[in-house]
Amino acid sequence: MAHPPSSESASSDSTPPDFTSSALGPSAHQRQRVGLPPGAVVFTGHEKTAPVTLSVLNYAEDYVHEATDVSIDTALQQRDAPGPSWINIDGIHDVAIVQALGDHFGLHPLIQEAIVHTGQRPKLEVYDDHVYIVLKMLSLSSPGDLDSDDDPAAYAPQLQAEQVSLVVGANWLLCFHEDPGDVFDPVRERIRSRLGRVRKVGTDYLAYALVDVIIDHYFIVLEHLGNRIEALEDDVLAGAATGTQEKINAVRRDLVTMRRMTWPVREILSQMERLESDVWSEETRPFVRDAYDHAVQVLDLVESLRDVVGGLTDLYMTSLSNRMNEIMKVLTIIGTIFIPLTFVAGIYGMNFDYMPELRIWWMYPTMWAVMIATAGGLLLYFRRNDWI
Amino acid sequence: MAHPPSSESASSDSTPPDFTSSALGPSAHQRQRVGLPPGAVVFTGHEKTAPVTLSVLNYAEDYVHEATDVSIDTALQQRDAPGPSWINIDGIHDVAIVQALGDHFGLHPLIQEAIVHTGQRPKLEVYDDHVYIVLKMLSLSSPGDLDSDDDPAAYAPQLQAEQVSLVVGANWLLCFHEDPGDVFDPVRERIRSRLGRVRKVGTDYLAYALVDVIIDHYFIVLEHLGNRIEALEDDVLAGAATGTQEKINAVRRDLVTMRRMTWPVREILSQMERLESDVWSEETRPFVRDAYDHAVQVLDLVESLRDVVGGLTDLYMTSLSNRMNEIMKVLTIIGTIFIPLTFVAGIYGMNFDYMPELRIWWMYPTMWAVMIATAGGLLLYFRRNDWI
Amino acid sequence: MAHPPSSESASSDSTPPDFTSSALGPSAHQRQRVGLPPGAVVFTGHEKTAPVTLSVLNYAEDYVHEATDVSIDTALQQRDAPGPSWINIDGIHDVAIVQALGDHFGLHPLIQEAIVHTGQRPKLEVYDDHVYIVLKMLSLSSPGDLDSDDDPAAYAPQLQAEQVSLVVGANWLLCFHEDPGDVFDPVRERIRSRLGRVRKVGTDYLAYALVDVIIDHYFIVLEHLGNRIEALEDDVLAGAATGTQEKINAVRRDLVTMRRMTWPVREILSQMERLESDVWSEETRPFVRDAYDHAVQVLDLVESLRDVVGGLTDLYMTSLSNRMNEIMKVLTIIGTIFIPLTFVAGIYGMNFDYMPELRIWWMYPTMWAVMIATAGGLLLYFRRNDWI
Amino acid sequence: MAHPPSSESASSDSTPPDFTSSALGPSAHQRQRVGLPPGAVVFTGHEKTAPVTLSVLNYAEDYVHEATDVSIDTALQQRDAPGPSWINIDGIHDVAIVQALGDHFGLHPLIQEAIVHTGQRPKLEVYDDHVYIVLKMLSLSSPGDLDSDDDPAAYAPQLQAEQVSLVVGANWLLCFHEDPGDVFDPVRERIRSRLGRVRKVGTDYLAYALVDVIIDHYFIVLEHLGNRIEALEDDVLAGAATGTQEKINAVRRDLVTMRRMTWPVREILSQMERLESDVWSEETRPFVRDAYDHAVQVLDLVESLRDVVGGLTDLYMTSLSNRMNEIMKVLTIIGTIFIPLTFVAGIYGMNFDYMPELRIWWMYPTMWAVMIATAGGLLLYFRRNDWI
Amino acid sequence: MAHPPSSESASSDSTPPDFTSSALGPSAHQRQRVGLPPGAVVFTGHEKTAPVTLSVLNYAEDYVHEATDVSIDTALQQRDAPGPSWINIDGIHDVAIVQALGDHFGLHPLIQEAIVHTGQRPKLEVYDDHVYIVLKMLSLSSPGDLDSDDDPAAYAPQLQAEQVSLVVGANWLLCFHEDPGDVFDPVRERIRSRLGRVRKVGTDYLAYALVDVIIDHYFIVLEHLGNRIEALEDDVLAGAATGTQEKINAVRRDLVTMRRMTWPVREILSQMERLESDVWSEETRPFVRDAYDHAVQVLDLVESLRDVVGGLTDLYMTSLSNRMNEIMKVLTIIGTIFIPLTFVAGIYGMNFDYMPELRIWWMYPTMWAVMIATAGGLLLYFRRNDWI
Repeated sequence: MAHPPSSESASSDSTPPDFTSSALGPSAHQRQRVGLPPGAVVFTGHEKTAPVTLSVLNYAEDYVHEATDVSIDTALQQRDAPGPSWINIDGIHDVAIVQALGDHFGLHPLIQEAIVHTGQRPKLEVYDDHVYIVLKMLSLSSPGDLDSDDDPAAYAPQLQAEQVSLVVGANWLLCFHEDPGDVFDPVRERIRSRLGRVRKVGTDYLAYALVDVIIDHYFIVLEHLGNRIEALEDDVLAGAATGTQEKINAVRRDLVTMRRMTWPVREILSQMERLESDVWSEETRPFVRDAYDHAVQVLDLVESLRDVVGGLTDLYMTSLSNRMNEIMKVLTIIGTIFIPLTFVAGIYGMNFDYMPELRIWWMYPTMWAVMIATAGGLLLYFRRNDWI
Repeated sequence: MAHPPSSESASSDSTPPDFTSSALGPSAHQRQRVGLPPGAVVFTGHEKTAPVTLSVLNYAEDYVHEATDVSIDTALQQRDAPGPSWINIDGIHDVAIVQALGDHFGLHPLIQEAIVHTGQRPKLEVYDDHVYIVLKMLSLSSPGDLDSDDDPAAYAPQLQAEQVSLVVGANWLLCFHEDPGDVFDPVRERIRSRLGRVRKVGTDYLAYALVDVIIDHYFIVLEHLGNRIEALEDDVLAGAATGTQEKINAVRRDLVTMRRMTWPVREILSQMERLESDVWSEETRPFVRDAYDHAVQVLDLVESLRDVVGGLTDLYMTSLSNRMNEIMKVLTIIGTIFIPLTFVAGIYGMNFDYMPELRIWWMYPTMWAVMIATAGGLLLYFRRNDWI
Repeated sequence: MAHPPSSESASSDSTPPDFTSSALGPSAHQRQRVGLPPGAVVFTGHEKTAPVTLSVLNYAEDYVHEATDVSIDTALQQRDAPGPSWINIDGIHDVAIVQALGDHFGLHPLIQEAIVHTGQRPKLEVYDDHVYIVLKMLSLSSPGDLDSDDDPAAYAPQLQAEQVSLVVGANWLLCFHEDPGDVFDPVRERIRSRLGRVRKVGTDYLAYALVDVIIDHYFIVLEHLGNRIEALEDDVLAGAATGTQEKINAVRRDLVTMRRMTWPVREILSQMERLESDVWSEETRPFVRDAYDHAVQVLDLVESLRDVVGGLTDLYMTSLSNRMNEIMKVLTIIGTIFIPLTFVAGIYGMNFDYMPELRIWWMYPTMWAVMIATAGGLLLYFRRNDWI
Repeated sequence: MAHPPSSESASSDSTPPDFTSSALGPSAHQRQRVGLPPGAVVFTGHEKTAPVTLSVLNYAEDYVHEATDVSIDTALQQRDAPGPSWINIDGIHDVAIVQALGDHFGLHPLIQEAIVHTGQRPKLEVYDDHVYIVLKMLSLSSPGDLDSDDDPAAYAPQLQAEQVSLVVGANWLLCFHEDPGDVFDPVRERIRSRLGRVRKVGTDYLAYALVDVIIDHYFIVLEHLGNRIEALEDDVLAGAATGTQEKINAVRRDLVTMRRMTWPVREILSQMERLESDVWSEETRPFVRDAYDHAVQVLDLVESLRDVVGGLTDLYMTSLSNRMNEIMKVLTIIGTIFIPLTFVAGIYGMNFDYMPELRIWWMYPTMWAVMIATAGGLLLYFRRNDWI
Repeated sequence: MAHPPSSESASSDSTPPDFTSSALGPSAHQRQRVGLPPGAVVFTGHEKTAPVTLSVLNYAEDYVHEATDVSIDTALQQRDAPGPSWINIDGIHDVAIVQALGDHFGLHPLIQEAIVHTGQRPKLEVYDDHVYIVLKMLSLSSPGDLDSDDDPAAYAPQLQAEQVSLVVGANWLLCFHEDPGDVFDPVRERIRSRLGRVRKVGTDYLAYALVDVIIDHYFIVLEHLGNRIEALEDDVLAGAATGTQEKINAVRRDLVTMRRMTWPVREILSQMERLESDVWSEETRPFVRDAYDHAVQVLDLVESLRDVVGGLTDLYMTSLSNRMNEIMKVLTIIGTIFIPLTFVAGIYGMNFDYMPELRIWWMYPTMWAVMIATAGGLLLYFRRNDWI
């Protein structure tokens, strides 16, 4: 199999993955790939300057070895480590590293291509001695401020999707992600502190634990979207501002993207539960089934939120119609009262020589009385009809 | 398997489960769980001060032993009771009790986690010597006033969802729910009074009876939603007030939530009917099939109500458009009649030296006649066109 | 099995089944059942004073015995009649009769419950020596006037749904329905006059014939709904009155109900075709397949009508917008012509000492000419733009 | 099996099949059947006076015998003809002929009923020695003018649906249709001129060829509908006239009907491809698969057109809103400019004794200047805001 | 099998395939086919004058022979070439060439018909010694300008769909397309430069590579559609111009067409992966699975874009309503302020003899003060209500 020379390297800017535009099409990822031979390991994400860092977490029931920012050789040696080794690669834009690891751990060229190609659909593939899982890790742009939900619609942290590739071998697990920083700290903490069963079992359980954390983060994103929808509903009810429908559409689009990214997860976990592989032990199955239930719940919630957003558009449309009715009522009330009266005033402003009323002294006060009575009657009529 | 120390205990406020916000996202439940090891028995519902109470109902064809507010030891002893024992646990916020029971009755850690984790999707899981069923019990916030349906839209009792976990063993049944008070009194009454077949058969039939009562309550909730929809339709037809679409959306959201909570019930009952387990006898099957039919009916009704709510939004939108047309008609009629007349009055109010009409004595009454004829003609025209 | 004492009996009012409200929820039927033990034979329909009447039609190829208003004992004796016996029970509110028949003919308690419980979903259940079928018989409230379709929208006969339970034994068929009067007269007539094959074959063919007649009546109801939709379309096009959307929603709701009641029929007939039972002969199958095709056609038509009703709402909304445009055009034309002219008249009504135009004798006629030309030009302009 | 006396015969009027109303319900067809025994051969279509004509086309690889307007006896003799015989029956309102043929060729009574019952759903049924296929032949009301597609929306040829029943025996094929005239001339021509393989193979291939021609005509109807939709889109964009939504709904309804009539065709062809029957040879299969692909394409196109029609309604609604905005802009511009100016003119038309401005000679020209400046400023403002 | 004389030849105009109208119906393609015998090789696309050109690319691991614009005989000789031969036929309007190739390479007449019949639905068919694949190649009308995406909505390159037929034999691959120019240059380049594995493996891998390139181009088209949608969203937000909904509908229609053309691709690749054929090697399977994943991604994106377009229509409708509200507000503010003031001015313009106010010197300035205060108060009130 031919591997093209990996001339791909770091360039100048380090823009974050653009979640929104990725909702509107395949963006630049797919286009750069057009015409390349399959199995060509070419990075298609945003170019980055940050160096790729590797970290290793080797553990067994009775020890933990943790090393961050290790060299590639250290990582390669983990293949023969005694206990399970979790090799974390922060950054996939240095294709040489991906290839070095891939060749050493025996990954199929198509896997190597998929790892650096950030536009993958979530999927699980079983190979002879390893399992390849690709997922989307969703997070909010400023995760530190998660608890300040005071005004989510105004604040609007951006959704961020990052591709996570897990390759699960017999006693090693490669975890590739695009950017430094991930959501796996709780798992690390559990390994360090011997919390839960993770220290006692193999890489399959570790893989499950990582997938489970990713799914748990979907709930956080859903909560955030739910808050945004509620804030939008308040906006609409408080008096629909102009940008509301735009915000509603942004939420809807986020939900469309979220659905596209989470829908295959159910299938992945269903495959994972039925997996027949050497690297997959029987006792991990109930946990995978549990994660499967969570994934189904995520989909249920996404669908429910989509329904609710649909109702929000209706709410906004009827609120606009209601406002229009209010505006027109004001004009109509004013018009209906004053247009006839102005006409009467116009009549007696005419300059006909023969207008006997003008000569009668009580006509003027009478006219006032009639006018006031008419206006009052109309106001009463409008109140009766609930116009005022 | 590692059980973390259950430091979880009762805190200060005792807010009711927030049904509405749960429709808009996973709320706080899922977030608290993020990063915890699976099988960690941590209560994620609303914190409560009320103590957890246990009650036991042990019966056979010829006797009934009923005890409320028993100690945990009494509950544990029920494992070896001769007849079927129904152990009811009101409150799941004291994790120690759940763990004590769980360990004694041999529940898998994932079941223990699921019991205290109130954001479960309804499901049924079969283990070696017990079956685990989780369901949502729906009720209205003030169940005592159910019969006063005089104005359901104004009154609007809140929907309440409570998670019920049933663990069905050979001759014991654990029933966990979040709050004191449940919908199972009719079953208790039947056991006490030997009504129906419940006294003659095992825990499988008891489990069926409890599920059946829960499904029966779905019909009550559906009836309530149906009443709210009818009241809303009356509101819309009586003259659409501003808050109507908001109320329509609230009903729609309740239906979305209800659907999310009842949809898996069909699958549960289908599994239950086909269940191959020691704790499940053959003669309970026709009853489960009956309950299955009820669950399908619930789903049919939920879908029908969703359709009807969709029509309600259309009705509201067209009623708003109709109102707008009415308002505009009034303004247009007034304008069309008086604007031209005012123009004529304006003409003869001009101060040109040479305006011969002003000097003719019959011009003024003629002008009145023409004006009245014009107005009358326009009114006639409007009536012909069904504007008035 | 425990049968509660059937204290249920006739009370005062005899309201017809409320089809519309049944579309909006489970109404009173399900609520009364809550908490009752399964198999409890308690009538849940509307209470009635009319006595339950039984009639018997016993026939074979060479004889027909027909007896109406027979005693319960006569009915029970039919179990051992030589030829097929069709026992018709008009009214299910006397639970004692249902129980007597049920126990004598060996019906499962759940069937007995289902027969008197009028909120069943249509279904077919196979027991050892009999088949239980429950269907909804749809009819229009005043069936005698079916042919006077002159103005279906104004007349609007109400849809009526009645539950029909068929229990098909080896040579007996029990047919329970809620009210006297049914749609089975054509079948009776065929039996009496030896028309068709019904006299030569068994109760399975009779059951098929009854189901077929019920399905045929669905077509009548669909025709009626189709007529109502056409009349509504004419209403909308003739000038949308205020109640139109309400009527559209009523039709939609009837279709929702109809769909809910006819959707399971397809499944029933599919089961019936594949039925393996002693009471079901091979040569009835092609007829059942024929009825199956009819049921599918009913569903096709229901879906088509739903689509058409959706289009009707669009038509109504655009017709309202069109009307609004018409109204606004009138106001705008009047305003655009007369407001500027009134302004000019106002100008020359001012009392400035120095207004030289007022002194020129040809100014007044000139002004008239300019005004008429302006108005004419605007009218021309409006006609050019298709406003008039 | 009992055949009722076929007293059905030709009556006075010969209205064409009413396609539109058939879209809105089962029309008269189903109602007339209610209560008839199954297998009753009663014509339910529109009554016709034209006599039923039979024609025969008997052929083999080396000869063709063609006879039109033959007697029924000639037709019956075809059963024993050496080569394949295509017996065409134009008109199914003479039930005696259908029965004579049916009995002679051994058709099941249900087939005989289905042939004369014009409201069938398309289906395929396999009997021992023949296959029964029922399809809807769609054509446009004036097929001669198909090429004059200059203004399809204005011209609007009506869709016509005609039921075609094919009964395929070992070496005979009965083809029943409602009216004289069909779409099969190309097949006849191919038989006469030995074009294609039709002369070399059996009745199964002939049946396929007929079905294929019917499907090909669906494309013509779809093209016509596509043209109507395009013309409607032009109408909407040119300025939405009042009848547009009505026409949109008519197209939508035609598509609903078309979908109802073509949806089962896919299933029929799928059955046909898998058919295990003596009358069906192996080598016809690839051709049937080809026809299946065409049928799927028809359904794809119907669904696509339905989507496009949905977009058309949106286009119409927004175009109405746009027009409304245009109308309101005109009124608002006129009002905003002249109402304030008229007010100023009104001020100086007042008759207060003490109004010093009236005495100043340059006030009048100044006022004009101010007024013109105000109006110009407003016009400029409106142009800036893209109102003009 | 009968092949009609292929009298079809090049005519005068060379219009590009009309993508848009093909979305609205089967256009001319299907109609020309009506009545032709199946297997009749008649070109149904747009007539063309350009001659059909053939090119051959014969290669093995160690050599490449490339020849463009070869004679038909050269192409026919490729059947016995040693290594895989890729025969490219640019133009299918010369039916004689298609038939010559088809007969020589042993293609079934139905394949020959399908190749020249440009209205095929994408499909894959397996024959004894070859596999037939038909796909739609989508491209933008001016592919050279792909990178100038500055204003996609204004520029709007037209979508172009071209039918590509691949016939994959043991060591030959026929590739028919309608027009000169294709998207396969990257594959050619890889063959020439020994890039990737294409040179080492057989025609099955080549077929995969071509299908993969076609799918990759779907992503380019999707990116373009995504850009158009974003540009449209900007248009709507910048102030909805009149043609916007038209453009939205154009995008929607392109998506409908795209969906129709890409939906079957998933099924094709699924078949391809499971293919049991001599011409299909085991080691191509993982690559086909990879292409399958891409095809699923295309469908996901199409569905997502459809959702987003739906939201765009909502956005446009609410933006129109917002604009209407803005317009009405201006009119209402002007009217509400000036109509009452004009009335007052009219009052004191009356000519009654007895109007004591007119005689008081401070009335005029007072009136001004009152008027200014009223107008100011109203403005304040409007500002309070967020109208200004």
